[in-house]
This record gives sequence, C-alpha cells and structure tokens, in this order.
Amino acid sequence: MKRIESTQNSLVKHWKKLVTTRKERDKFSEFLVEGFHLTEEALKEKALVKSLIVREGVDIPEEWDVAEVPHYSVTAQVAKEISETEHSQGIFAHCAQPEFTEEEQQRWSTLLLIDAVQDPGNIGTMIRTASASGVDAVILGKGCADPFNPKTVRSAQGSHFQIPVVKGDLRDWTDQLKSRNIPIFGTALTNATPVHETEAQENFALIVGNEGSGVDPQLLQKTDQNLVIPLYGSAESLNVAVATGILLYGLVPKSKVE
Amino acid sequence: MKRIESTQNSLVKHWKKLVTTRKERDKFSEFLVEGFHLTEEALKEKALVKSLIVREGVDIPEEWDVAEVPHYSVTAQVAKEISETEHSQGIFAHCAQPEFTEEEQQRWSTLLLIDAVQDPGNIGTMIRTASASGVDAVILGKGCADPFNPKTVRSAQGSHFQIPVVKGDLRDWTDQLKSRNIPIFGTALTNATPVHETEAQENFALIVGNEGSGVDPQLLQKTDQNLVIPLYGSAESLNVAVATGILLYGLVPKSKVE
Repeated sequence: MKRIESTQNSLVKHWKKLVTTRKERDKFSEFLVEGFHLTEEALKEKALVKSLIVREGVDIPEEWDVAEVPHYSVTAQVAKEISETEHSQGIFAHCAQPEFTEEEQQRWSTLLLIDAVQDPGNIGTMIRTASASGVDAVILGKGCADPFNPKTVRSAQGSHFQIPVVKGDLRDWTDQLKSRNIPIFGTALTNATPVHETEAQENFALIVGNEGSGVDPQLLQKTDQNLVIPLYGSAESLNVAVATGILLYGLVPKSKVE
Repeated sequence: MKRIESTQNSLVKHWKKLVTTRKERDKFSEFLVEGFHLTEEALKEKALVKSLIVREGVDIPEEWDVAEVPHYSVTAQVAKEISETEHSQGIFAHCAQPEFTEEEQQRWSTLLLIDAVQDPGNIGTMIRTASASGVDAVILGKGCADPFNPKTVRSAQGSHFQIPVVKGDLRDWTDQLKSRNIPIFGTALTNATPVHETEAQENFALIVGNEGSGVDPQLLQKTDQNLVIPLYGSAESLNVAVATGILLYGLVPKSKVE
C-alpha cells in the first residue's frame, strides 16, 4: 500500500481532474467513483478497477476481495481534494471506462438510446432504470451529459458496472439496428401511440430525448413507431427519467422475471 | 410599484427566510417561487400570489395579467439575496401555500401518499408526475422533505399550482380512505403483485415510501394490496420518483385522456 500525502502529487492531480473535467475522463477513458456502495459495485467488475484510494483511518470492509487491487492510503486533505461530496466516506475507486467490441455491440437487441439529455442526474437515473428493466445497453448520443460525470455515476447507483453504457452517433445506431430488423420506437407528442396500447417487444430500441425539446425530428423519421405517455392531468410534461421508466416498463417482456 | 434597495429591509429578510428555512415557510404558510416559468404558473392561481418581485431591468411579459398583483422592484443585490439559483432570472412570486377544507379533502378519490421521502428533488418530481397522471391530490406524511422547499418547487415545475399537495398523518389518511371504501395500494418487495398484473382503478390511494427503507411496515398493514415493480436486470432498485411514475400509470384509468 502506497501512501500519498501531497495534493500536488501527480496522481492526485489526475484523480481530481477525472472528477472535475470531462476532458480528462475522455482522454484517459477513466473515471473515479466515491463511497462504499459505488466502490463495492465497482469491485464486482474487478477488471475495471485500477486502484482503491482510502483515507487514513477508513477501514476496507473485511468481506471485500481486494488482495490483487493496488491500494493508496491518502491523507484527509488529499481525500477532500478528490471528493465531490460534502461528507465524504473517504473511499474511492479509480476505474477504467468499460469498452465493448463491435461484436458485443451487435448482440445487443434491447436498447435505450438517449438523445441530448443534458442533466447528469437524469442520465444517471435513466441508466439505473435501464439496468432495472433488463435492457441490454444504453447508448448516449451527442449533447448528452457525460455518463461518467460524478453526478451521473452517483445517481446511477452502480449501474455503470451492470449494464453497458456507450457514447455513439444515434443515426449510425438507428441504421445498424434497422439493418438487424430491430424495431425502433421514438417518443413524440403528435402522431404517436399511447404507450399502454403497445405490446411488449422481444427486441426493441427506445429513443428518448432532450428535457425541453424531446427527440431530434430527424431521428424520429427513422423510427418504426412513436410512443406517447398521455398526460391525464395538468402537468405539461413528465421528467425524462420518469418517462423513460414508464416507456421501458411498457416495452420489456413481462415474463422475464425469475 | 414599491422599490426596495436594502437587503436589510424586513420584507427582504422574510423572503430570504422563506427560501432558506422550513420554519419560516411553516410559520407563515407561504413560499417563494423564482423564474419566469414558475411565476407564470403561480399567476394561474392568482389568489395565492401575494406579490411579484422584479429585479430592476427585468421586464414583465406583456401578456401577463398582473394589474391587481402588488409589485416590488428590487436592486440586483436584493434579487441575489433571495435567489436560490446561480443565474437568476430576477423574477419571483411571493405565494401563500394553498389550503383545502375538510370537505374538499373528502372529495379526493385518487391519491398519492408519500411516506418519508427525503430528497426534495424526488418529492418535486413525484408531485409533477402525480399532476401528469391526473390523480386528485398528493399527501406527504412525516419524514418527507418540505413540499415548499425551493428545490422541490423547482423540480415540480409549477405542479404545486395544479394539484393539491398537503402534509398529513398517513395513518389518519388511510383510516379516512378505508372508511370511504377507497382501495389502498402499498408498495413492497415481498407478498406483492407485479404492477402489470393489476387493473386500472377508478378510485385508489397509492403509498410509496422512503428511498432506502420503503414504506413503513405499520402502514403496509393497512393496505388492501401491495404492488411491486419487477426488477428484470441487475439494478437493485429504482429511483422512487421513477417507480411512482410506473405505478401511477399502472393504476390510473387509461380512458381519461381527451
């Protein structure tokens, strides 16, 4: 176990940049998770964990199998430097962003496609919802918040280690999915079928869009069918993560549960 | 239009406390909303608006009918003092919290009951979702975040002016609803019916619970039936606002839409 005392240490500077800038996360294809719950979830995908970072005085739970994972012991000051939370638990995992081969990506047959959703908390909640609903993967198009933003990671509650989350061009994705005969459902307010009138689908891609403007009209031209969640009351719209939950649970086969 | 220049003005101090403390909101049964969208929504329930507060240089949209509403023009410094956001739009409405008579409350026959949900953003999203789903009212039990917290108000996007939101004792509420033969649905992980196996209900109360521990077991003993959202994938749970959306849209009659 190495000990780091200085916030000027180059590794500390790298960790801090992973927390604060998308540029660093993109450049190295890495991210940092914080807290016992997220670190434990990360350790379930051990190949992704580059190192554990532990504040002095914090004990790693005995049941964690971390013998082969590099450890850093850091001072309270260093822990504070790389923490995003007010009351840090003093434990972090420095992780690689998962990557998926072309072949793996071609096997996904139930997908959530997210177009330009800007709020990191919404993106995180949508990843968590996708993981719960059992779909194969989440694809984030242009204009989306970074899925490895600390706020996104926190609201996803560990789902980044459970379901593939990749960034991509949604036009390329819809072309690819069409060529594989996977039905594509958009979301729109007009010319759309109420979600409760749709059947569950063995394979599907669902596209949800920006908090204010919805799905890009050019993408909607590529869909097989557009869905709408009826608004029975006075609210003009639903939160996009809530809408995603209602839509995904409308589309996934109901027999899958064990 | 009165002009206020000092942050030491007693009204400014009252507005600031409405933004920052639940005690002030509870004591006066008032709250402050910020921004063009929320102020416009507030003006749709004009009886609730005690005054408009406008930063110098900010124009009230011409189409707003505000002739009878008291106005205060305030300096940038005063506006900053009472603002909760980083980039304030410089427009606020000082509002009374809506109140409902016993008789009105007895007429509500589709209700969302919230038990000890702590995150203000979740509460706001749930109020917005309830308003969209068309239920009659939202009841917040003990341990819930204040529905008039600025974060809650912001995430509800104006739904506070569209759907009754009241604080109450959920045991009293379940007793009252039972005496009116309104079926009560709890949410639980065991001994529960998958939500997609439930029929839509003309009248119902749905109880959802705390982010970590769910609905109080003592409340669950008073329900007619408990519902569960199956987790088909790896995530251990859903965000409570997402879950509320799936459950409410499972229960509300699907024919209501116009």
